[in-house]
Amino acid sequence: MIRHVTSEAELISVYLAPLAKQNAGAFELTDDCAIFSPSPGTELVVTTDAIAAGVHFFPDDAPEDIGWKALAVNVSDLAAKAATPRAYQMALSFPQAPTHEFMQRFASGLAQAQSAFGIVLSGGDTDQRPGPMTITITAIGEIPTGLRRTRDRASPGDAIFVTGTVGDAAGGLKLRRDDADARNWPFSDDERTGLIARYLRPEPRLAAAGIIRHHATAAMDLSDGLAKDLGRLTTAARAGAIIDSTRIPLSPPLKRLAATIPEILELALTGGDDYELLFTARPENEPVIATAASAIGLKVTRVGTMSSERGLRLSTPAGERPMQPKGWDHF
Amino acid sequence: MIRHVTSEAELISVYLAPLAKQNAGAFELTDDCAIFSPSPGTELVVTTDAIAAGVHFFPDDAPEDIGWKALAVNVSDLAAKAATPRAYQMALSFPQAPTHEFMQRFASGLAQAQSAFGIVLSGGDTDQRPGPMTITITAIGEIPTGLRRTRDRASPGDAIFVTGTVGDAAGGLKLRRDDADARNWPFSDDERTGLIARYLRPEPRLAAAGIIRHHATAAMDLSDGLAKDLGRLTTAARAGAIIDSTRIPLSPPLKRLAATIPEILELALTGGDDYELLFTARPENEPVIATAASAIGLKVTRVGTMSSERGLRLSTPAGERPMQPKGWDHF
Repeated sequence: MIRHVTSEAELISVYLAPLAKQNAGAFELTDDCAIFSPSPGTELVVTTDAIAAGVHFFPDDAPEDIGWKALAVNVSDLAAKAATPRAYQMALSFPQAPTHEFMQRFASGLAQAQSAFGIVLSGGDTDQRPGPMTITITAIGEIPTGLRRTRDRASPGDAIFVTGTVGDAAGGLKLRRDDADARNWPFSDDERTGLIARYLRPEPRLAAAGIIRHHATAAMDLSDGLAKDLGRLTTAARAGAIIDSTRIPLSPPLKRLAATIPEILELALTGGDDYELLFTARPENEPVIATAASAIGLKVTRVGTMSSERGLRLSTPAGERPMQPKGWDHF
Repeated sequence: MIRHVTSEAELISVYLAPLAKQNAGAFELTDDCAIFSPSPGTELVVTTDAIAAGVHFFPDDAPEDIGWKALAVNVSDLAAKAATPRAYQMALSFPQAPTHEFMQRFASGLAQAQSAFGIVLSGGDTDQRPGPMTITITAIGEIPTGLRRTRDRASPGDAIFVTGTVGDAAGGLKLRRDDADARNWPFSDDERTGLIARYLRPEPRLAAAGIIRHHATAAMDLSDGLAKDLGRLTTAARAGAIIDSTRIPLSPPLKRLAATIPEILELALTGGDDYELLFTARPENEPVIATAASAIGLKVTRVGTMSSERGLRLSTPAGERPMQPKGWDHF
């Protein structure tokens, strides 16, 4: 028998309050407000991202994955600022009262993410309204006062780095959707599962905090694709960039595929949802960044250089060409 | 000719970035994160509320009123904690790209509210998805460290106060909807307009901050109706309350109506959206609260007393009866 949650009070007390239990300032979600006590000597990093069924996730995704993703995409923005995650506010909207099974599994995914990222629920809002289920999160983290790695701090001449590999989530999305062009990709079951997991369960690169704090001039996360997000960074920095196509870091399955399907490079440049970090640093710091990354087992690749000439350019074995800052846009 | 916004970048740079101009930590909305520097010696009060077309406002409400209301309902929660408003994050979702006219007027309502409440935009998120237009705001305010007026701090014996008058927004909503039972209410045009304005343009009671800080034991705002919200306060305080029906503060038009239509008292007890404050204080402070309220021209009425006996009771000229904590519920 499918049982639905019957009131906001039940939804909050049974499924959400346990996520706020370790947060004294959340008052077991019995108050409209949370109290947040900043650590001395810190500034707060605040970020907001919403995910909606049918837009950012599939309505039939596992509820655990939906909960994880909603929090992960926000914590990824904190990771890009080398912030220590502290607390988050969550606004939930449902077209109809959710089932107990859904809420239990959704809250379980959030609990896993909380534990993995070191963050706790502080409060929020629940509503019923038409349209897709939507989870809007505002996450708060802390950085030492003055340590700002905002996009406008990148300068011409800075080296451009990305963590991990790019294009995997876009590939995973094609596999998840069973797109015609992805149906014949020659992947093992493990490779397919791995790419789909990149889409379903993004991993914020919190481990990069030390590298960002000590070496980066600017940093951001890759949510809408390397080309589009780099376009934003260069615009904020009032500069441009040149990217080396041969240095775009691809996972083994995508690299194999790219050897026969040239469009895979395009997928890697414009596909969103990877939640890797894009950061800039003085070029002389490249060796020390490589050493620091290797010490924590994090893949970091230099992919290009900031330029004073505005716009994005892609350097390929066939020559240089302009790169459009294309990627995901809602409108 | 109706022109629609054509990209997220345009929406942000043309209409939202000006709202963040005075906030250095918002980086003109060119970054995924905002930086928030807490004032020394303060704790933060954080609150989240969403409003959606067709649920919390009418799709054909003036865009200025929608912008105002989205921010006001959040700042009202800050007012209830006697917090000084500082910054807010806003997530917008539209079923289709909004028109330039809508965005201009919506942003103008937000700008008016920012100026009235002393708060600035720090960041957010914009999405296109099916369903009603939705505005989800997380507002941040500051209080002196240790000054917490959370609901659990009310005690049996405390006097219960409300600011202003209650039921006006519920009456205004009936007038706005042209409900059959409201069509014959004997109001002047000014009275009708005034009640509808209570629904469309809630006024957070920031002026009460001094009274809350110095005299209240617990405080919250009235968003879902006096009965329901008082039920929440007493539950959090593990106590009960008795309310005097003859002391419920009604505006002149509602008072006149209540003389002939007894159900108006019910409307005043269960109607939401007033955004008045409900607070408790030691009963011996009633005179000093009255003096302080009168000094700032704020109507404050003692409506009852906290009791150790759980549950809500209503004392009326006909005797005492249980009062159900009824009001607005989404499910």
